[in-house]
Amino acid sequence: MTMLIRNGEIINADSRVKADILVEDGVIRQIGEKLDAPKGTEVINARGKYVFPGFIDPHVHIYLPFMGTYAKDTYKTASKAAVVGGTTTLIEMCCPGPTDPVMKSYELWRGKAEGNSACDFTFHMGVTRFDKKSEAELRKIVADGISSFKIFLAYKGALGVSDEQLFNVMRLAKELGVIVTAHCENAELVAQMQQRLIDEGKTAPKWHYHSRPPMVEAEGVHHLTTFAAMNGTHVYTVHTSCRESVTAALRARERGVKIWIETLIQYLTHDMTYAEKGGFDRASRYVMSPPLRHKSNQEYLWHGLQQGFINTLATDHAPFDVKKQKQMGRNDFTKIPNGIPSLEDRVKMFWTHGVCEGRIDMHRFVDCASTQTAKIFGLFPRKGTIAVGSDADIVVWDPKYRGKISARKHYMNIDYNPYEGWTTKGRPALVTVRGETVAKDGEFVGKLGHGQFLSREPTHF
Amino acid sequence: MTMLIRNGEIINADSRVKADILVEDGVIRQIGEKLDAPKGTEVINARGKYVFPGFIDPHVHIYLPFMGTYAKDTYKTASKAAVVGGTTTLIEMCCPGPTDPVMKSYELWRGKAEGNSACDFTFHMGVTRFDKKSEAELRKIVADGISSFKIFLAYKGALGVSDEQLFNVMRLAKELGVIVTAHCENAELVAQMQQRLIDEGKTAPKWHYHSRPPMVEAEGVHHLTTFAAMNGTHVYTVHTSCRESVTAALRARERGVKIWIETLIQYLTHDMTYAEKGGFDRASRYVMSPPLRHKSNQEYLWHGLQQGFINTLATDHAPFDVKKQKQMGRNDFTKIPNGIPSLEDRVKMFWTHGVCEGRIDMHRFVDCASTQTAKIFGLFPRKGTIAVGSDADIVVWDPKYRGKISARKHYMNIDYNPYEGWTTKGRPALVTVRGETVAKDGEFVGKLGHGQFLSREPTHF
Amino acid sequence: MTMLIRNGEIINADSRVKADILVEDGVIRQIGEKLDAPKGTEVINARGKYVFPGFIDPHVHIYLPFMGTYAKDTYKTASKAAVVGGTTTLIEMCCPGPTDPVMKSYELWRGKAEGNSACDFTFHMGVTRFDKKSEAELRKIVADGISSFKIFLAYKGALGVSDEQLFNVMRLAKELGVIVTAHCENAELVAQMQQRLIDEGKTAPKWHYHSRPPMVEAEGVHHLTTFAAMNGTHVYTVHTSCRESVTAALRARERGVKIWIETLIQYLTHDMTYAEKGGFDRASRYVMSPPLRHKSNQEYLWHGLQQGFINTLATDHAPFDVKKQKQMGRNDFTKIPNGIPSLEDRVKMFWTHGVCEGRIDMHRFVDCASTQTAKIFGLFPRKGTIAVGSDADIVVWDPKYRGKISARKHYMNIDYNPYEGWTTKGRPALVTVRGETVAKDGEFVGKLGHGQFLSREPTHF
Amino acid sequence: MTMLIRNGEIINADSRVKADILVEDGVIRQIGEKLDAPKGTEVINARGKYVFPGFIDPHVHIYLPFMGTYAKDTYKTASKAAVVGGTTTLIEMCCPGPTDPVMKSYELWRGKAEGNSACDFTFHMGVTRFDKKSEAELRKIVADGISSFKIFLAYKGALGVSDEQLFNVMRLAKELGVIVTAHCENAELVAQMQQRLIDEGKTAPKWHYHSRPPMVEAEGVHHLTTFAAMNGTHVYTVHTSCRESVTAALRARERGVKIWIETLIQYLTHDMTYAEKGGFDRASRYVMSPPLRHKSNQEYLWHGLQQGFINTLATDHAPFDVKKQKQMGRNDFTKIPNGIPSLEDRVKMFWTHGVCEGRIDMHRFVDCASTQTAKIFGLFPRKGTIAVGSDADIVVWDPKYRGKISARKHYMNIDYNPYEGWTTKGRPALVTVRGETVAKDGEFVGKLGHGQFLSREPTHF
Repeated sequence: MTMLIRNGEIINADSRVKADILVEDGVIRQIGEKLDAPKGTEVINARGKYVFPGFIDPHVHIYLPFMGTYAKDTYKTASKAAVVGGTTTLIEMCCPGPTDPVMKSYELWRGKAEGNSACDFTFHMGVTRFDKKSEAELRKIVADGISSFKIFLAYKGALGVSDEQLFNVMRLAKELGVIVTAHCENAELVAQMQQRLIDEGKTAPKWHYHSRPPMVEAEGVHHLTTFAAMNGTHVYTVHTSCRESVTAALRARERGVKIWIETLIQYLTHDMTYAEKGGFDRASRYVMSPPLRHKSNQEYLWHGLQQGFINTLATDHAPFDVKKQKQMGRNDFTKIPNGIPSLEDRVKMFWTHGVCEGRIDMHRFVDCASTQTAKIFGLFPRKGTIAVGSDADIVVWDPKYRGKISARKHYMNIDYNPYEGWTTKGRPALVTVRGETVAKDGEFVGKLGHGQFLSREPTHF
Repeated sequence: MTMLIRNGEIINADSRVKADILVEDGVIRQIGEKLDAPKGTEVINARGKYVFPGFIDPHVHIYLPFMGTYAKDTYKTASKAAVVGGTTTLIEMCCPGPTDPVMKSYELWRGKAEGNSACDFTFHMGVTRFDKKSEAELRKIVADGISSFKIFLAYKGALGVSDEQLFNVMRLAKELGVIVTAHCENAELVAQMQQRLIDEGKTAPKWHYHSRPPMVEAEGVHHLTTFAAMNGTHVYTVHTSCRESVTAALRARERGVKIWIETLIQYLTHDMTYAEKGGFDRASRYVMSPPLRHKSNQEYLWHGLQQGFINTLATDHAPFDVKKQKQMGRNDFTKIPNGIPSLEDRVKMFWTHGVCEGRIDMHRFVDCASTQTAKIFGLFPRKGTIAVGSDADIVVWDPKYRGKISARKHYMNIDYNPYEGWTTKGRPALVTVRGETVAKDGEFVGKLGHGQFLSREPTHF
Repeated sequence: MTMLIRNGEIINADSRVKADILVEDGVIRQIGEKLDAPKGTEVINARGKYVFPGFIDPHVHIYLPFMGTYAKDTYKTASKAAVVGGTTTLIEMCCPGPTDPVMKSYELWRGKAEGNSACDFTFHMGVTRFDKKSEAELRKIVADGISSFKIFLAYKGALGVSDEQLFNVMRLAKELGVIVTAHCENAELVAQMQQRLIDEGKTAPKWHYHSRPPMVEAEGVHHLTTFAAMNGTHVYTVHTSCRESVTAALRARERGVKIWIETLIQYLTHDMTYAEKGGFDRASRYVMSPPLRHKSNQEYLWHGLQQGFINTLATDHAPFDVKKQKQMGRNDFTKIPNGIPSLEDRVKMFWTHGVCEGRIDMHRFVDCASTQTAKIFGLFPRKGTIAVGSDADIVVWDPKYRGKISARKHYMNIDYNPYEGWTTKGRPALVTVRGETVAKDGEFVGKLGHGQFLSREPTHF
Repeated sequence: MTMLIRNGEIINADSRVKADILVEDGVIRQIGEKLDAPKGTEVINARGKYVFPGFIDPHVHIYLPFMGTYAKDTYKTASKAAVVGGTTTLIEMCCPGPTDPVMKSYELWRGKAEGNSACDFTFHMGVTRFDKKSEAELRKIVADGISSFKIFLAYKGALGVSDEQLFNVMRLAKELGVIVTAHCENAELVAQMQQRLIDEGKTAPKWHYHSRPPMVEAEGVHHLTTFAAMNGTHVYTVHTSCRESVTAALRARERGVKIWIETLIQYLTHDMTYAEKGGFDRASRYVMSPPLRHKSNQEYLWHGLQQGFINTLATDHAPFDVKKQKQMGRNDFTKIPNGIPSLEDRVKMFWTHGVCEGRIDMHRFVDCASTQTAKIFGLFPRKGTIAVGSDADIVVWDPKYRGKISARKHYMNIDYNPYEGWTTKGRPALVTVRGETVAKDGEFVGKLGHGQFLSREPTHF
């Protein structure tokens, strides 16, 4: 099957050209001016539209047992939401508990995706324990194509790793050429502050912020970078939310640590007041960790993305519904399941509030939301660029579209949308995953099960 | 005329693909697998070779009246040296003295290049004075396609600008969307330290360093960034040589200043001991400004290039011969014409000591030496990428070549080479400028006069 | 004449003791328990009171031709205000214009003090020009007992020094062992921003801030410290107002620069909103340079004083009346004479808002407002401590006093008080200058002319 | 009993005066010129000498079970060594293991000092466990006059605290107004690096450094300051050895953390090469933790002491003999008992290499080695100053003395001296503890048992 995308303006992280794209068998075969359409070719007219490489969300949760419940999405719902929004590759966290068997967990997570996803997928292998047995299994998992680990410095007594485990993860990752992604908040400080606040009767959602202020996150980043430096390991701080923790990462980078910084769309668009306003039902929607921060961080984060000292944009997608799940924390903010679902709207909001507002240019837009992610996680050049030989994951973007976001019409399986009522400027007019059209003008038109597991090589870069 | 480059591995800053490239009329028309060669097409077999976008040197001097003499190269010699080394675009500084008429100077400089260059070229417009008349002429020059200024904070009483001029350059540049490149050393400190050292009888080349230690450069960077911040101007620090000044730039970047950082190949490969060892004839070859620094800076600079917090790699090419010109400073280091010629060998040394030693990967190699430069200075995507629609400035790189560098065989018009006797791993096997082959295996095979002036748009990015 | 101060609690920067103090001939002769009172001794009962060393204001203007007018105080008014407020030593700036003869100016300033002052005094010698002649005169002035210079990086075309002058002042100061105090704001940036704001019709007092934001001050500090470092000179940043400039000084200190930091009482008690509120008559009272800053700086400055990374507290006393002088800038904020008079109330406000609020302890209170100043400027141990052999400059402090500040009853010759209506907790019950009682319970009871010139040695420390 | 010290020059941290001192009943009663000597008074002629307050060593170990053995000194030997060297107050660490009962340990440690010491003493209470019982006992110990805790972030599985314990110590300390002193090295990193090095056959003393490089210490400081900041606790980093960790503390101080920094005489005088040179018997003498550092840190540490951003100078005295104890690590550096004995020579070396070399002035000398320590730990003004009412702990210092240090004649019970053969300029000619003469010209002349326990108040400052 062949497809020819005509007359669009192809925007890569480092190129901008009006040219045609010829796709065969799911791969981009030619890029050129006025290409011929072989017989039987589906021809797409992209005049007046931009053509981007498919976007990648490097930080999502789909199957997620967490805080006594489960995130609401499955691959059937989440992958639809992803592609409708322009995201064609997901990197989910495989997130076993500290007593779960490692290989079994990996197979469990992978099994939930295989055959069910509309888009391609791969995993960060969560490491919540570290012993001889788990090390052996981790080696096998890396050999199977998983070249990134995920650890938590937060979540004491649950997912969090001890310093000993942290060191050993770093050692193993260095040996295997695997990058370690990390949730950086000091677990003990959070646990203690939660207790202190609850003891003081401070139970409402807004106190969540105060249990993990910026210094708690910066402490986590500093800790991570020291352990990385001692081992020469490559690290990646997920959901970096504020100036303090970005600064900690930058200082480490200047000391020679190979570190990459991810922030989330939510931190760019929402601030801490969202978890303060309204009653519990409203405020609890905006509880995630690290928490939404003071508005003054937003300009800094945007600037970092544009200047390139912040590398990638993700969502940490983790949907818990308002009706039941968020209610678990009605009398105790520490029991509110953490997460602000944004998988479907990340790219649109990044475009609307970034490119349209002049905060970032189109090349940085592509780079942060796709290309750099592909490079960091060993998906490049298969993913992350419109290039000959690359997978035909293509987003034809209509910059003229204007619409409003609403939970009533989104594909995510969740009863609210943090952007409810917000305007979006532009959206994907067409989305392909390896040459198959999966979304058109906001509608899912693909097939569940088309998505494939992406095996990745360790990079040692 | 058409050319087909077959079977190479195309390395862009953000892509890596084995594919063919079809060139027609100087432009890349198609990139694809197994492309057809129209009749009459010259077919190049690039199997086993890398295919890079032509490299860009954003900081060269060719016509340069300086310190009472003239740099030795002309476009006839320099552009040959450039292309043989893989550099297909030069950005020369148009460098009028403070009393020279601005427009006339621009025409003078441009006139020296037009019709004489083997490769494409453009200019940073040097601003060494600022008044109503010169402002009007600068506006015209920008309208003519020059979208970058160059200023000196150094060279008191000669090229250096006053604070008043500095502010006005910044204001005008912001208004016009022009980036300001700057030589950052405090002029007065240099002048005073020179006098002090000479008064103390410290006249040998090694004292040059002590007249402009790292803090003098860092002071310049700090000063520049404050003036940039007050106006919102985009700035670019040329030849950043050491940790102190990079740090000053990074702190400004974190405060929101839009700043890019250039370093030079010489700072990566040579240290201050080169200007200390041997007699005058040897040491004086290694006198440039800012001076070669302590070796401990090199690992930091390489790390910065790889991690991306340092942006570009240039040469500040300025050849003055040992036989006569460097002799001017035999009894007084302040009279040694400044410069270490490296135009011809920059790319090879960056590859040999960077990529081959594992200090940078190939994508960063291309990005620092070509792509980012093109983006920063408004040449992109015409230059800086192998992409459909881009100029066919192509370097087919032979990674297997081994050779030695020597002044006896280089194309630069200068009687020494700072890399004399150094080994090079890899070199350009073929170099094209807009589709014309200009160099093959170390030999110039092109035509002087093929090179064109590159008109650039203000970017306002 | 002898005086015995009984039963007070003596608070030095580094000691706290209940003991008696015996004063003879203006000097402290004994400190001990239950000292005998020789016949004829005046005995002061200080029970329930603190006994502090006389406070020193290291930054005042009395005779001050500035911005086309003259500050309102003379030694007759200012020295009364000083001692009533507990300040027993003034360091005035001798402030010649750039064309004034240096020695004559020194004699002029000194002549205005001699015979007229109620308290002791000395001078920072302002350097606004630098040539052979002025250098020779500066040497004589230092030999005469002036061991500190004052320079302005601000005030372009008036008091400001060029980089060449700056370097030479640093060189000379290093040679002579003289500390250089500096007003750190980049002159050109201020001048340009003033012009820009006025051109935009922004003429009200509140725009004064925007003509010299924090980065302009930080730039000045950075510049100063580089010139200091190149010469090894000791430097002192006067009226440091904000985090940005303190940070610039701290980084220099860590790099090895010997630098001391002064802040002002006004920056601790007032913020930028004072120059924004009310009509011109109100707002213009709060115009000084550097301007009052954002409130968020205050906690930082207090913390710095307590932790000791900020060294001294001064006033930059410069009274211009509202009725006439401030009016000069009614239509143009750049013409508002700069100054917020605080000489009389500095110590009381530092006590009330510092010690009484738990922001600083009593030892730091004494250290910042007296002892460190004495040490830095070569007055120690003659001044700045209650010790045997030291001058009997003594403040017996009544911590129980409560009152309100008002221009109606102050001694300063100025028609407003920036603390009008503010509460003061505590005040001097008794103040002596070299054993002579000069103030009692808020009333001046001394003699004009009792104050002496203090000759100071270069320190070379 | 009365003593009159005549004609000396009294040097306090903030005063310098030639005056007599009258001591009665162990307390300074009068300071004045030409004081009368009551009948029976012992008169000391201090002409030509300096008179300092007795020095305080805030960080010593005397009774120390550690690494399977015991430090060699007892109070009988250590307190003699202390006073002969001018140190009149010791703050020893009470150092129970994690399973030892808290109150019993306190009593054990105190019992070893009571009746045996020639000088006064107090304790930091080591916290190596934290539970309800130990908290209750800690409260009693604080009530008994111990107002500082000591914790270890290092020594995994032995003395080190967990994050949970760390938080609780901080909380309790804040509540009680107690300062927390901390050994800052990340325990896990040290343990892992030790294992790695030993596994690689790197067993010699020089590898000790590599098991705990500067970043491991800086990590500890950063960690400490975050936990301090979350609780508002005052903290004190003991034996800060290098620029990296001082910088971590300074940044915290700027963020508002109340932190004080101690360095050791050994870091000023010795560098890491001492643990690299010679055979095991020589190198092992210089093993302590944190290890001796690169020489480039020394200038920085001296500068910090002079400028005041480093606060105090101690020894971490911990003598283990070469003959037997250091031998434990002959085949494994991790088993070398840590410590470089310096109690006796700290003050002389600080004077010789500090004051005599112009690196610090006499006031900073006194401040760092006595006054600030007294202030920070609640001993002031009883200790740390020559003032009326203060304890008569007096050091009459002979600046003209010249001698050599040797283990053959020192009082410490240890078979080597790290300063063997080094020259000392100056020494105590006379040392008193509460008015009793305890040392004269390098000889102990006092009585064991004269020393008293010093009860200290929580400060809440």
